[in-house]
Amino acid sequence: MKRITITDVAKMCGVGVTTVSRAINNHPDINEETKSMIMQVIKDNHYIPNNSARNLKRADSKTIAVLIKGITNPFFNQMIKVFEEEIQRKKYSFFLQRVDENQDEIDVAIELEKEKRLKGIVFLGGYFSHSKEKLTQLSVPFVLSTIGMATEFTPSDYSSVSVDDLKESYKIVDYLCNQGHKKIAIIAAPMDDVSIGKLRYDGYKKALEDHGIDLDLQLVRIMKDDIESYTMENGYVVTKELLASKEDCTAIYAISDSLAIGACKAIFETGKKVPEDYSVAGFDGLDIGFYYNPSITTMRQPVKEIAEETIKVLFDLINKKISHTHKIFPAELVVRDSTKSL
Amino acid sequence: MKRITITDVAKMCGVGVTTVSRAINNHPDINEETKSMIMQVIKDNHYIPNNSARNLKRADSKTIAVLIKGITNPFFNQMIKVFEEEIQRKKYSFFLQRVDENQDEIDVAIELEKEKRLKGIVFLGGYFSHSKEKLTQLSVPFVLSTIGMATEFTPSDYSSVSVDDLKESYKIVDYLCNQGHKKIAIIAAPMDDVSIGKLRYDGYKKALEDHGIDLDLQLVRIMKDDIESYTMENGYVVTKELLASKEDCTAIYAISDSLAIGACKAIFETGKKVPEDYSVAGFDGLDIGFYYNPSITTMRQPVKEIAEETIKVLFDLINKKISHTHKIFPAELVVRDSTKSL
Repeated sequence: MKRITITDVAKMCGVGVTTVSRAINNHPDINEETKSMIMQVIKDNHYIPNNSARNLKRADSKTIAVLIKGITNPFFNQMIKVFEEEIQRKKYSFFLQRVDENQDEIDVAIELEKEKRLKGIVFLGGYFSHSKEKLTQLSVPFVLSTIGMATEFTPSDYSSVSVDDLKESYKIVDYLCNQGHKKIAIIAAPMDDVSIGKLRYDGYKKALEDHGIDLDLQLVRIMKDDIESYTMENGYVVTKELLASKEDCTAIYAISDSLAIGACKAIFETGKKVPEDYSVAGFDGLDIGFYYNPSITTMRQPVKEIAEETIKVLFDLINKKISHTHKIFPAELVVRDSTKSL
Repeated sequence: MKRITITDVAKMCGVGVTTVSRAINNHPDINEETKSMIMQVIKDNHYIPNNSARNLKRADSKTIAVLIKGITNPFFNQMIKVFEEEIQRKKYSFFLQRVDENQDEIDVAIELEKEKRLKGIVFLGGYFSHSKEKLTQLSVPFVLSTIGMATEFTPSDYSSVSVDDLKESYKIVDYLCNQGHKKIAIIAAPMDDVSIGKLRYDGYKKALEDHGIDLDLQLVRIMKDDIESYTMENGYVVTKELLASKEDCTAIYAISDSLAIGACKAIFETGKKVPEDYSVAGFDGLDIGFYYNPSITTMRQPVKEIAEETIKVLFDLINKKISHTHKIFPAELVVRDSTKSL
């Protein structure tokens, strides 16, 4: 079906494009009769007004920026879509800014604030290890989305929406222990990580402890810092090393699904099978975890709910309805074919 | 390792942040001695200046917009990174705008031109079926990147960088035929597609013809239009229908790797194997094709080269070095484990 455009609507109505635009945007400067006629044509022809363009035009000074670390991380793709929809629904325009792993997101945000006259900021992903002084340099409301915060921050200094990474990580390791696994390797973040990496590692340690399993540091495997973090490639390289080291283990817990897929590939390359030789579990609930062979056992984050709530909190802050707030969503253990009981 | 910021550098040098910024940006208004001292501190401490922020500040009126259809398509993720790097290297700032599948990208571009005083536009992905009149509404140079164009366009009206989708599609189907496959299903785009979907389908038809195989329309399976196109989900749903129809086939050619992965999942769910029961081939050369089990036979597009050349052509147009040009890169047949000879 050919999409019809604003030009087509204008032609059908025998008016100019500007007039159609005025009708759509409720502009006062249009004859009511003309307006109803145009709206009827729009309705009859299922024309979908081009929201992006409209919002860009109307709302130059009403912009929400989303700053994202790791744009190649598929976990964020779904969230970006929801952010855009929710922000446009509020009649704000949406600005997506990628931040490199080695960039300081607050510096980027401060510049953006000036240039774009932002009304609010969403920080998505990444580590977050800024001083309170630094945070106070931001003059517009902001929300940290899916960024686990270590303890050094005072909750009253910022707002956040995420899962409880420690608790959810605990659950999946607890599940592996309950399946009889005692030698569970982890693919973890560098030990100076103070964000989701640390929290998920802490959950792993706590679950082992509660099951009376000693922490074996030989089974704690750190993502390579010269490869993009949380990627399939990183999980692949780390697992190849783990397998080559001949350390004894029956399960691998990767702290993201992408890492878990890389781990599976490394296992296949040594002629071993998942889950027959090694159980592999991930975290996040990416679509590919369902499509992978075997499908990947994971903790699914409620991505859509988190993204919607992020925007809700941000607008509540903008409208001064609330002071800083922290929303925690539960994740869901999804048991699939990549893990087995011993 | 804690990243050091511009504020840290300023403290170490005993100067203000503005002075550090002037040193980094080669601002004339700074004492040469102070400047060398600052640059030495920067070097000694491995401080990486925050390019995004710098460019945002400096180049508000020198912006290149990248308009992308299908931001969730992992094929584009790698390209976006290269675009950003190349554009920043030219000291322009980079603006990423998502375009919905049902949006008119030219309308979006026209609005953006006005708002952002753009110097150039990259259209990435999607169909492209605009009239010449429409294209002439764009007043700044633009390049179509990885958008295959059907014949209705005059090459002198636009510039493009892509692979030859018809020829490369031909190659992979030719390969399947040479492996002895005669009943090759295709997961294709809707028949009114005038872009890469049509070209890849035409390559399929031509390869069959050259091998003396009659086109069997029962084996031509169209992506669902109520599911995002070129996705794993679409390939999964279409392949489930194909398998349920009991049409006889030995190979499935999906016109993207994501579709191919969805196809594999559908095959596994019926208890069949890839490639033992069905060979499956994709197109694009996504990373996941390597990590999938079995790894996916595909036509790999030279993503980095295409992205770099796109920016080069765009700047040649901006600097009026060239008139419209069309760069075609070869793709590479990557034979992996998802296909077998009969």
